Parts: sequence; structure tokens; C-alpha cells
Amino acid sequence: MSYCAEIISVGTEILLGNIVNTDARDISQMLSELGINVYYQTVVGDNPERLKKAVEIAKGRADIIITTGGLGPTCDDLTKQTLIEAFNKETYFDAEAERIMLDYFKKRGKPVTENNYQQVYLPVGCVPFENTCGTAPGCAFEADGKYVLMLPGPPRECVTMMKVSGIPYLKSLSDSEIYSHNIHIFGLGESNVGDKLYDMMMELSNPTLAPYAKDGECYLRVTAKGKSQEECEKLMEPVIAEVRRRLGDVVYSVDVETLEETAFLLMRDRGLTLSAAESCTGGLLAKRITDIPGASAVFRGGAVTYATDTKASLLGVDSQVLKNEGPVCSTVAVQMAEGVRQRFGSDIGVGITGIAGPDTDEFGAAVGTVFVAMSVDGKVFCRHLTLGSDRERIRTAAVHNAFDMIRRYLTGLEVE
Amino acid sequence: MSYCAEIISVGTEILLGNIVNTDARDISQMLSELGINVYYQTVVGDNPERLKKAVEIAKGRADIIITTGGLGPTCDDLTKQTLIEAFNKETYFDAEAERIMLDYFKKRGKPVTENNYQQVYLPVGCVPFENTCGTAPGCAFEADGKYVLMLPGPPRECVTMMKVSGIPYLKSLSDSEIYSHNIHIFGLGESNVGDKLYDMMMELSNPTLAPYAKDGECYLRVTAKGKSQEECEKLMEPVIAEVRRRLGDVVYSVDVETLEETAFLLMRDRGLTLSAAESCTGGLLAKRITDIPGASAVFRGGAVTYATDTKASLLGVDSQVLKNEGPVCSTVAVQMAEGVRQRFGSDIGVGITGIAGPDTDEFGAAVGTVFVAMSVDGKVFCRHLTLGSDRERIRTAAVHNAFDMIRRYLTGLEVE
Repeated sequence: MSYCAEIISVGTEILLGNIVNTDARDISQMLSELGINVYYQTVVGDNPERLKKAVEIAKGRADIIITTGGLGPTCDDLTKQTLIEAFNKETYFDAEAERIMLDYFKKRGKPVTENNYQQVYLPVGCVPFENTCGTAPGCAFEADGKYVLMLPGPPRECVTMMKVSGIPYLKSLSDSEIYSHNIHIFGLGESNVGDKLYDMMMELSNPTLAPYAKDGECYLRVTAKGKSQEECEKLMEPVIAEVRRRLGDVVYSVDVETLEETAFLLMRDRGLTLSAAESCTGGLLAKRITDIPGASAVFRGGAVTYATDTKASLLGVDSQVLKNEGPVCSTVAVQMAEGVRQRFGSDIGVGITGIAGPDTDEFGAAVGTVFVAMSVDGKVFCRHLTLGSDRERIRTAAVHNAFDMIRRYLTGLEVE
Repeated sequence: MSYCAEIISVGTEILLGNIVNTDARDISQMLSELGINVYYQTVVGDNPERLKKAVEIAKGRADIIITTGGLGPTCDDLTKQTLIEAFNKETYFDAEAERIMLDYFKKRGKPVTENNYQQVYLPVGCVPFENTCGTAPGCAFEADGKYVLMLPGPPRECVTMMKVSGIPYLKSLSDSEIYSHNIHIFGLGESNVGDKLYDMMMELSNPTLAPYAKDGECYLRVTAKGKSQEECEKLMEPVIAEVRRRLGDVVYSVDVETLEETAFLLMRDRGLTLSAAESCTGGLLAKRITDIPGASAVFRGGAVTYATDTKASLLGVDSQVLKNEGPVCSTVAVQMAEGVRQRFGSDIGVGITGIAGPDTDEFGAAVGTVFVAMSVDGKVFCRHLTLGSDRERIRTAAVHNAFDMIRRYLTGLEVE
């Protein structure tokens, strides 16, 4: 049987926008891996009346209810009491939970307050969940045909307890598993991808195929449900192959999350090094590749030649070209790529010059005009891009294009 | 009158735990500033039946319903249709929305697909919200005694539309005005700030004073409610002054959102230029300052000398020092700062070298060790930082320190 779950996060600080609800994200991810569908996430404040109503609604639409927050010792923490009432449970004093709680305070040399003892009263018949990172224990119980799990709110306590106690509890309820793969795409927008795969997205049910957008890119997730990982993989394989067949070489990876990581892995596996000369992207390419732990195996460094004269003085770009054609042209991009490759002694050099706006330069190049050049193996390539008017998007797209050029060159595809 | 709102976020990717619901956090924060209480946040998947039920529930418990997601052109996007049915609205073809959409595609040289036209059908009688960062317009309408706002899902589109169109729409529903100021702090943690201001945070009601954490920094928001901006400003003025008095020079700005912008404005107003030599931060400083439109007035450029030998060959760092002391020491940071300042011909030079991890270098410097140096007016300053073990946090904190050093130097405060 397939269960559906609802996560109820209790905390006024979430409703005030003081914190983002990472607990719900992390629990959802774990439930998805267990093949448990989450149909709703609800956030409610530290208010017993509204929490009670939210629990009543959840009872009517979910098999599993997981609460986060409201188990601590302060006066705001009313989740346990509300759930106990909603499910007509009694509580008992859990001596083991008391021992763990006293031990926790003893280790830290902190005094136990009276209301800490409230925490060790648990619903009769529950499975207690030890809190290995804090004081409030959680628990799970079955009542009215529903499974209820109570977890603490602080993210580290919540996620750890879910991993250590929640998942084993839930696994014992289910016999199917879920696996998924992400298909990453560059160079085709979400609506075009939708057009090419419309029938598959609508008709497939196991595995499912769904599109997502992230950071100006689009990716697809294939998700299968089965008795084992092997069965799931067998279900997904032909779907991934069909997506590849329809979309062609705009698919840059399955499960490698970013273009920079895809390019990085290709360079690292071939023992190639990279350097980059950046103008309008102002160090974003360097920042993105050095986000990857171990980047130093590939990336030797880069020059951010933001002022026009530094393109000549630091990279050897021809001053006459800068004077006559301006800094935003293919000649300058190519000379930046070659110059940085030589100066940093790398195998591949990238040069990016363009107008990220809001203002244009004295040569009148339009905002969004970007040239991305690559120097490699004695050859040069250059893309001329027209990227709209949003500064952040222009910079991101320029950098994505540079990594895409590297990835296409190293996999034998056309680059420009 | 005081309204209460519910946010309904539509997106299977949130229920799968693929993304965290920052939209709900950001909208909640903005509503809180408007004095609108959020009692529930709900997340539902791309499923019209379940969305419809969620909308019915929200109609019964909120005055204002704000949806995010489900306005795009792909087959998953069903929010608009579902809301139109739930509120018995008709749609019309919005010619202005079509013009904006066509313009968007024309600027990017991309083809318009048939399903993009779906987006420009809007509910009759609505206030259309232009999407300045994407293609799907949003809107607001009043029906069945409720106010409904539809916003797109991608965070940048959602937050921008809420700021540009949603807030003015909601403000028009109320007769009192709300204004706020943000007090930005660097160099004092949230719990220390809390200790120093505890009584104010607890006792003040108009204006209120609340702490927020963002990107490793802490800031305070002062929010006043009144009949006019002038009245609000008068209420906030003494509170801001008292916060400044208690916290001292760790307050780096009121309303200038980032350290880099604070440093940028100080340099620009004094006609000073900057260049930066980065190792472990890998271009992050350059990226952060060039995020600012108009950065070229100050930032001449930088060198990302990631490989050790490039510190000598490009910046003139002493090879003997690199060989004997290793690349992570104050001498190297200072020589990087001086070298980059000379080579880029700037007034101020910054040098950053450190270990962002996960691995250490052959000299055994601990992960999290970072030296940040500044060369200016013939003087050098260097901070030796110990920044924990999280790669991203180390890189961010190093860059924050560099901008803080510039800001402190230019305002006559102690730098190291």
C-alpha cells in the first residue's frame, strides 16, 4: 500500500518570515525517498486553536502526520498537548526519557528546570524517539487509523531524529521504494522542453517525468517506484533514453547538478587546467568553479579585468582594438582568452566581455551583448550572445555559456 | 481593520523536498511589515483537485490568499485555472500582457510557443502584475469577500513581483501606513545583539524592533505604523539612535543592505578605486562588488591566483616566502594586496589567502584559516581569521571582512 503524508510545522517564527522552513524540505526529501507521497505541507503558529484545526484537516487527508516544532520547554510549545487531545491519548512519565534528559543536562553542567520535566511525559503506547542533539524527545504513535510522528523544531534536532528514528519507523510501514534521476539541460527553455516532451509528461505514471527550473536552467526529474532499486532503474532507463533521443545534445548530464561541475569533471578526468579572464561577469565564473571542493585540480586562476585599460596591461589585449572597436567585441574576447591562458599557463583559457548594464559603454554596445571566447589546443571559439536586460541573468547566462563551450568541446560537439 | 493572510505555495518540487520554500518566507516577512498576520502557510503539489481543496480551506480562514507558483507555460502549471474556477471568474485576453510577453521573447531572440499565450489570459476585473524577471504575469482580484494575489514560483520573479506590485496593492487596502528601517551589523553575533537589546525587543510595540539573520550577518528591523511616513519616521528615530548607542561601530549602515555596497559608496564618494587579489575566495569578492550596478566607478579588477605559483608570477609575491611559509600567511596576503594594487593601478588593494577546505594544504594550515590584507595610502593592514569548517561560510566571511576593513578605514575606525 502507498501512504500519503502531511507535514505540519509549528512555529510563529516561520509565519513571520524570520526563518525558512528547511525542516519541511528535508523531511519531504526523506519521505520521497521512502516512496511516501507528501500531498500537503502546512505551517501554523504557536497557537493551540489553529494547530488543532490544522490537525483535524490533516486527519481527513493524510495517513501519516508529521509535526515539527513545539516540543521544547518554553510556554510557546504546545504541539504535544494539542496532538494528545486531538487523538484522545493519555500520557505517561517515561523514565528512560527522563534519564536521557538528566544526562544531557549533567554533561553540559546546566541546571534542569521544572518545565524540562514536561518533556518526558509521552503519549501512552508511543515509540519514543531519543533527541541526540537537544533535550526534547520526539515520538511516534498510531491512533484513529493514522500514524503520527512528533519531531522537534530546531533543524539539526529535527533532521537527526528523523534520520535516526523516524525513517526506521516509517520503513516498517511500507514495502515499496522510490528512486529518481535528474536530467540537466542547457540551451533549451522550459517551454520548448515542455513542447517536445508534453505527451511523456502527461502520460507516464511510473516513472513520472516532470520539469523544473533552477538558476536560469531547466531540468527534468524521472521518478520511479518499485520493490527495489534495480526495478526502479529498469523502469527509468528507457525514459531517460527517450528524453535524450528527443532533446539531443542539450542534455548535458544525468545527475551532475551544474554545468560547471560537468565541465570540471571533464577537465579533471583529462588532466586539463583552466583559467579565465572576465570583464562583465566580474569573477562570477571563477567563483562558480571554486564553489566546487577540489577545484584546484583544474582551476589555476583568473583575471577580472573590469576597467578597459587593464585588459591591455594585464592580458595583452591590443590597445588599438580597444580604442577602435571598444572592449565589447569578439576580437577582445578572443585576445582575453588567449592572454589569460598564456599568463596562467593553463590548457584552456576563457575570455568574457560584455555589457551587463544598466548602462552601456561609450561605443554603444547594447545591454545584454556578451562575447564568450575559448582558447584551447591552438584553436579559438567565440559565441556572440544577446541576453536581455537583467544584470544578474546576463552574468549568469554568460558564465553558463562558457562552461557549456568547454563541455561541448571536450565531448566532441560543435561549440559555437 | 486588520487582515489575516494565507500563503498557498503550489509546486510538487517543494513537496518532494527538491527546493526549500523561500517564497513563503519572503512573502511572510513582507506581510509582517505591512501589519498583516499570516496564520497559515500551505504547500500543495501540481494537482488541481488538491489545490482546489486547499483554496476552499483558505477561503474559510483567511481574508487574503496569496498563491505562488503554477503560472508558467508548462503542463504542470494549473494554479490560475484552479483559482478562476474556485472564485467563479471568467478570463480575458490581456493585450498589454501579450505585448510585454512578446517583447520579452523578442529581446532574447527566442521563439514564442503556443502555450506562452495561455499566460496572458487573466481573470476579468483583476489588477495585472507585470513580471519584470520572467514571462508569466501575476495579478490580484477581489471575489467572495476575499483578496487573491497570484505570483509566479521562481523566487526572483515572485519576490520582485511582490515588492513591485503586491505590496502597493495590499497597502491600498489599509488606511494606516507602515515603514521600516534595517540596521545592519557586522562583527557581533545574533545572541550578543539579543543580549544588548533584549528589553527593547520585548517592550517596544510601535515601533517594533526585531532581529534577523542573513548570509552570516545579523540585522535589526525597526517597523512603525502610523498615519503618514513622517509620523512613522518620528517614531523610529529615537529607537535607531538608541540601538546605535548600545551597539557602537559594529552598526555599519541603516538601509544600505550589504557591506560591499557600504564600502562601495564610501569609495565612490571619495573617488577611490579598488582591486583585489583572491585565492581561497576564488573571485567571490570581485563577483560581490560587481553585483552592484555602476561598480566600474570603483572596481578596476582583480586577480584570482588560485594556484600557488600564480601568486608569484602574476602578483609578484616572494617565491621564497611561498616556499618556506606556504601560501597561507600574513606576508603572502599583504604582498598580494600590494601586488594587485600596483598592477591594477588602484588606490586600495585587497589580498585574501586561506584554506576553505575540505582539504588543507601541504603546510598544514587548518581549514578556516584566512588572512585578509588591505594596502592603502602606503599602509598595510591584515586580519588573521579562524572561520570554522564550512567552505561556503569561510569564503563569505573572508569577503565580508575585506569589505569591513575598507569601511572601517574610510570612516576612521580601527581596522585590524
